[in-house]
Amino acid sequence: MVVELISVGTEILLGNIVNTNAAYLSEKCAALGLSCYHQSVVGDNEGRLEETVRLAVSRSDIVILSGGLGPTKDDLTKEVTAKVFGKALYEDAHTKERISGYFSRMRSGSITENNWKQAMVPEGAKVVDNHNGTAPGIIIEENGKTAILLPGPPNEIKPMFERDIMPYLRSLEPEGIYSKMVKICSVGESKAETMVLDLMEDQSNPTIAPYAKTGEVHFRVTARAADEKEADRLMEPMLSELFRRFGDKIYTTDEDVTLEEAVVSILKEKKITLTTAESCTAGLLAGRIMNTAGASEIYNEGYITYSDEAKERLIGVNHATLEKYGAVSAETAAEMAKGAAKAAGAKAAVSVTGIAGPGGGSEKKPVGLVYVGCSVNGNVRTEEFRFTGNRAKNREYAVVRALTLLREELLKA
Amino acid sequence: MVVELISVGTEILLGNIVNTNAAYLSEKCAALGLSCYHQSVVGDNEGRLEETVRLAVSRSDIVILSGGLGPTKDDLTKEVTAKVFGKALYEDAHTKERISGYFSRMRSGSITENNWKQAMVPEGAKVVDNHNGTAPGIIIEENGKTAILLPGPPNEIKPMFERDIMPYLRSLEPEGIYSKMVKICSVGESKAETMVLDLMEDQSNPTIAPYAKTGEVHFRVTARAADEKEADRLMEPMLSELFRRFGDKIYTTDEDVTLEEAVVSILKEKKITLTTAESCTAGLLAGRIMNTAGASEIYNEGYITYSDEAKERLIGVNHATLEKYGAVSAETAAEMAKGAAKAAGAKAAVSVTGIAGPGGGSEKKPVGLVYVGCSVNGNVRTEEFRFTGNRAKNREYAVVRALTLLREELLKA
Repeated sequence: MVVELISVGTEILLGNIVNTNAAYLSEKCAALGLSCYHQSVVGDNEGRLEETVRLAVSRSDIVILSGGLGPTKDDLTKEVTAKVFGKALYEDAHTKERISGYFSRMRSGSITENNWKQAMVPEGAKVVDNHNGTAPGIIIEENGKTAILLPGPPNEIKPMFERDIMPYLRSLEPEGIYSKMVKICSVGESKAETMVLDLMEDQSNPTIAPYAKTGEVHFRVTARAADEKEADRLMEPMLSELFRRFGDKIYTTDEDVTLEEAVVSILKEKKITLTTAESCTAGLLAGRIMNTAGASEIYNEGYITYSDEAKERLIGVNHATLEKYGAVSAETAAEMAKGAAKAAGAKAAVSVTGIAGPGGGSEKKPVGLVYVGCSVNGNVRTEEFRFTGNRAKNREYAVVRALTLLREELLKA
Repeated sequence: MVVELISVGTEILLGNIVNTNAAYLSEKCAALGLSCYHQSVVGDNEGRLEETVRLAVSRSDIVILSGGLGPTKDDLTKEVTAKVFGKALYEDAHTKERISGYFSRMRSGSITENNWKQAMVPEGAKVVDNHNGTAPGIIIEENGKTAILLPGPPNEIKPMFERDIMPYLRSLEPEGIYSKMVKICSVGESKAETMVLDLMEDQSNPTIAPYAKTGEVHFRVTARAADEKEADRLMEPMLSELFRRFGDKIYTTDEDVTLEEAVVSILKEKKITLTTAESCTAGLLAGRIMNTAGASEIYNEGYITYSDEAKERLIGVNHATLEKYGAVSAETAAEMAKGAAKAAGAKAAVSVTGIAGPGGGSEKKPVGLVYVGCSVNGNVRTEEFRFTGNRAKNREYAVVRALTLLREELLKA
């Protein structure tokens, strides 16, 4: 079945808030096996809202509207949707009672007249109680089309969706969508894409789609099946083919696992402790690694050595090396990694030194020149990169490349 | 003029990513005085994308599309939009040259065939160079309608929009729209909004609109005027009223200045050197501070002290303090700041220690409990926070609170 989302609210059109409800609803609907081809945002304007609802109803089976159910006169979602479905509104006693109950519980003063607007529901509609606010959810069904009206506040829409709307939708869609995210590092986006072009050529079930991510490539493999077991059976050939082509460059097939989490689990599994020595990234690398819950098991301390003097004093980079090759050099990156491991008493260390920009570049050492170093059990390896982004982007790439290098070396250890 | 946004990407329809580009573009367009009545999201499907673009062009003057400009075969935005405007595609030599240049700089292996797809542009279109990626921006104008095609990655679309698209849009809008972003820290969001409710009541020119940001509050003051001088005159009373109410809690009125940049400029101005000592944020704080270009002037080194032993050895936290109060305590945060300043020979130091979660919490010290410490010229101050987000959110809040505390102390110094 095809579902379509309409977010109602001028605050979204003005960019005052990010439309997180749409992301939340999309993900839930995908997990329920519903196909979502369109999302739209429209303001609190009767004409445009009606036009948007009519278009959605004409091309989709289920239309989920969020927002515009409040008590004020510019909350029009219910009125307009009822009009499109040709339904009159009546006052629902049960809802009216819940509203007065809510206000007495909240002790939020006397109820103003306009609050009773929220007790009006379209004839024949299912009313879904709102346990976190006053506007009820509403389900309208007519000639095979369904409209689901939900309140806008995330703390109201989420519990309502999980408690009542998901079971309702599941009853409409017996088949489920299941997917795995094949996450790859150490390969460029377009190279990875060309490596699977043939698989993408004639795909039906499962399907494969690429997602670019800074310094990584993700392929989503999606199967439509009655249950997870059948989905796994359908996806298995595609997955093993991807493993045949990418091997250990695939660091996970789990949607929720990040590159840093994959690296940390190798460290835990091999009982290798890690430290970090950062110049241009100045903590971003360590900060990202430590976003992994429980990483304290393999990480005790790290060094941010921005000045040459700090590189010498904290992690024992040789003065001669800095003199001869400069702070931004493979030699310095190597000594930073080796020295940091020694200083921290860690088996592994990863280092970054480079010119993030915008200043500090030269003919010989331009902005974007970055060296990452890695030391695992005394084996040191460095890599040179020339990034072309702004300061923030160059630092972000440096972090991913450092993680990737570290992972490659850990796999050998 | 009426602008409409179309975000292209199946990953948005699947809820894999939140559509932050739409919020970003909406805010910028509003600031430019453009009216946005519709936003839509459509997947990488030729038929549906074409239908969506045709509808948008039929009802809006300017259509901004983001995403779907990549090298992969399911990137169709350019092809479909060119079709709707009846334009053929040709290979743009300048863009092709930029792409090969990008790859040679990135050293990311050989360029695969599909990359040249990004050098194809619609006839008669304006090509906007991408300084942070390979896909150029494209502007197509035909019979009073304009389509602007932008790359999807936020780090590519934002600089391109600010550098080239904003001036272009400004040239289309006869009357000038000028705005200042009043950025405030040290005040909660809802408190800040209640403090300006009266100003928001009957606003016309200039207008004021709040934008929430993690741990900060931003108010955009926008004036419609003939020129910037006139705009400044119109905004002056509103701005001085805001300064009267928020005083030095306003850290900038410049759109582009971040909190960390504001802090770094105080450090430079007062010639105060800084160091950092981080436990739960593990480098994120330093990493954010050092995203400020030229910060090396005031920052030489920083410490990531995750383990108690590292807190003692690297920055001289007393063993007794850790024994008696624990690593997550005001006492430890204070000694981390004082000790880090001493170890680094810096006049100022900021520290963070806390329980980011999900594990590690207890009855007495729950997940989200964070202490930040600050030492400026020997004066030490600490603050306690109880955040309620997930691990990532708690760490992000801790960073902002540490920056805010540091700024408050620097203003006193």
